[in-house]
Amino acid sequence: MNVFVVGIGLIGGSFVKDIKAKLPQVTVYGIDSNPEHLEEALTLRLIDVKSSYDDLHLADFVMVSIPVDVVLKELPIILDKVNDECVVCDAGSTKELVCATLDDHPKRRNFLACHPIAGTEFSGPSAAVSGLYSNKTNIICEVEKTAFKLQEKALGIFQILGMRIRYMNPKAHDKHIAYVSHLSHISSFMLGKTVIEKEKNERDIFDMAGSGFESTVRLAKSSPAMWTPIFEQNKENVVETLEEYIQNLLDFKELLLKEDYKGIYDEMNNTNRIKSILRGIPINKK
Amino acid sequence: MNVFVVGIGLIGGSFVKDIKAKLPQVTVYGIDSNPEHLEEALTLRLIDVKSSYDDLHLADFVMVSIPVDVVLKELPIILDKVNDECVVCDAGSTKELVCATLDDHPKRRNFLACHPIAGTEFSGPSAAVSGLYSNKTNIICEVEKTAFKLQEKALGIFQILGMRIRYMNPKAHDKHIAYVSHLSHISSFMLGKTVIEKEKNERDIFDMAGSGFESTVRLAKSSPAMWTPIFEQNKENVVETLEEYIQNLLDFKELLLKEDYKGIYDEMNNTNRIKSILRGIPINKK
Repeated sequence: MNVFVVGIGLIGGSFVKDIKAKLPQVTVYGIDSNPEHLEEALTLRLIDVKSSYDDLHLADFVMVSIPVDVVLKELPIILDKVNDECVVCDAGSTKELVCATLDDHPKRRNFLACHPIAGTEFSGPSAAVSGLYSNKTNIICEVEKTAFKLQEKALGIFQILGMRIRYMNPKAHDKHIAYVSHLSHISSFMLGKTVIEKEKNERDIFDMAGSGFESTVRLAKSSPAMWTPIFEQNKENVVETLEEYIQNLLDFKELLLKEDYKGIYDEMNNTNRIKSILRGIPINKK
Repeated sequence: MNVFVVGIGLIGGSFVKDIKAKLPQVTVYGIDSNPEHLEEALTLRLIDVKSSYDDLHLADFVMVSIPVDVVLKELPIILDKVNDECVVCDAGSTKELVCATLDDHPKRRNFLACHPIAGTEFSGPSAAVSGLYSNKTNIICEVEKTAFKLQEKALGIFQILGMRIRYMNPKAHDKHIAYVSHLSHISSFMLGKTVIEKEKNERDIFDMAGSGFESTVRLAKSSPAMWTPIFEQNKENVVETLEEYIQNLLDFKELLLKEDYKGIYDEMNNTNRIKSILRGIPINKK
C-alpha cells in the first residue's frame, strides 16, 4: 500500500510514524512545500520517499495535514490527481468550509473529512511522536458523501492507530470545537500576552511562575500560521464563544468589586465538576 | 528535631513527606481541624504523631499550610505558643495582609513569611507527593523581620528540599503573583464555566475535547475554599489583571470582527516568545 502525506509536520509526521510502525509493508511518500521539512522527514525516517503531486496517481491513501487555508486550495488539486480507489483525508480543525468547497468536486466520493483531536503545541517533522492518535477521537463529517469502500479503507487505518470514531455534521463540529478547542487557544494566547506585557522584566515571570501558569499558557506556543486561518474560517462561532467567555470574566470581576465572596466560592465550586468531565480526556504524556 | 505541620493537605503533606525522607531523625507532628485528614495523614505516614496546639511548645519548626483567611486567625495564636527558638513559616499565596497582621506581634521575630511556588490542582493528604518542592522557587517576604538564627534554620530546611530562594517585599509579591498565578486560575475557571454552560450534554465535551482544553482548564479543579480568600486578600491586584486580560480579549475579538487576520497573526506571533520564558519553569511531572 502507498500512503502519501501532504504536509509532514506534527500531525502528518505522527500519523505516518505509527503507520510505518504498525504496517511495515506500506511505502510512505512525503510531499511538502518546505524542502527542508521534507529532507528532515526522510532523515527521521518518517517517510520512505520524497515525492510530489506527479506521483499522486500511485496513492492508496492520502493524509493532507496542512493549514486550513492552504487545504482549500490544495485539496481540489490533489483529488484531481488521485485514482478512483484512493481515499483522501484531511485533518483540519474546521470542517464547514472545506466540506462546502469540495461539495461539487467530481471526486467528492474520494474525500473523507476528518478531524483527529490530537496534537501538541509543537510543530514541524521533529515534533512528530509515536502513539499521538492512540485512544483519541477522530471526528468524521459528511461520511455519507464518501464512497463506502473508501470509508472502509480509511476506518481500517484509523482502527490500526487506535482511534475512536465520531460522526458529526460540519456545522455542529465547528460550533462545538470552537468551545472545546479554539476558545482555549485564544484564552491562552491572551493570558500570555497580558503577563508578558506587564512583566517587561521577564526574569520575574521565570522566577515566580509555577506549573499552573505553564499549563494555562501552554497553547500560546502554538503556530500562528496554523491558527490564524482556523480563526478566520470559524469566525462566527469563535466570536460567540469569546463573547460568552468575556461576559463570564466580567461577571467574576463584578463579584470581586461587590466583595461577594460567597458568589465567588459558588462560581468556582460549580465549575469544579470539570474534574469528572476531564477524567474522560486522554492526555498526551510528553 | 520536632517539625509541626498545621494543615496537612497537599502543601503541608508534601512538605513533611520530603522532610521525613531526607531527615529521618525528625519527628513530624500533625495538626488539622479535620480529624479525618489527620487520621489519613498518619495512615499515609506523612506524620508520626497526631497533635494539637497544646504541644506547640515542643516545636523547632512549624509549617502552617492552611487557607489564607484562616492563617490570619491562627498564626497569632500559634506564635503565642511556640518557644523562642522555633521558626514558624506560612505558605500562603498572598503576603501583604499576613505580614501586616503580624507586624506588631510580640513574636514577629519567630515568623518567616513564605510562598513556595509549588502545588497541583489536587488537595487533601492523599494529594501529597514527593519532590514537590525540588527546584521550585520559595518567595520570602520581610526576611529582615525574622531573627537571623531562625532564618538560617528555615533556609537550611528549604535547601534540603532543593528550593531556590527569592526575596521580595509583600506588596511586590502580591502584585506579580496576581499576574503569574491568580489570573491563570480565574481564566481557567471561567473557561471551564463557559464550556460547561454551553455544552449541557457533557458527553460532547468528553468526546471532542483534547489535551489542549485539558491543559487550559486544569486549574478549574482547584479548591474554592483555598482560592476564595486569596482573591479576597488580593482583590485590587486581581481586578487590575482581570481588566487587562479582558481588554486583550476584547481587542482580539475586534480584530476578528474587522477581519484583520494580519493583526491576529501578529498577536499570536508576538506571544509565541512565551516559549523561551516557559523553558525556565520547572514542571510537576504527575
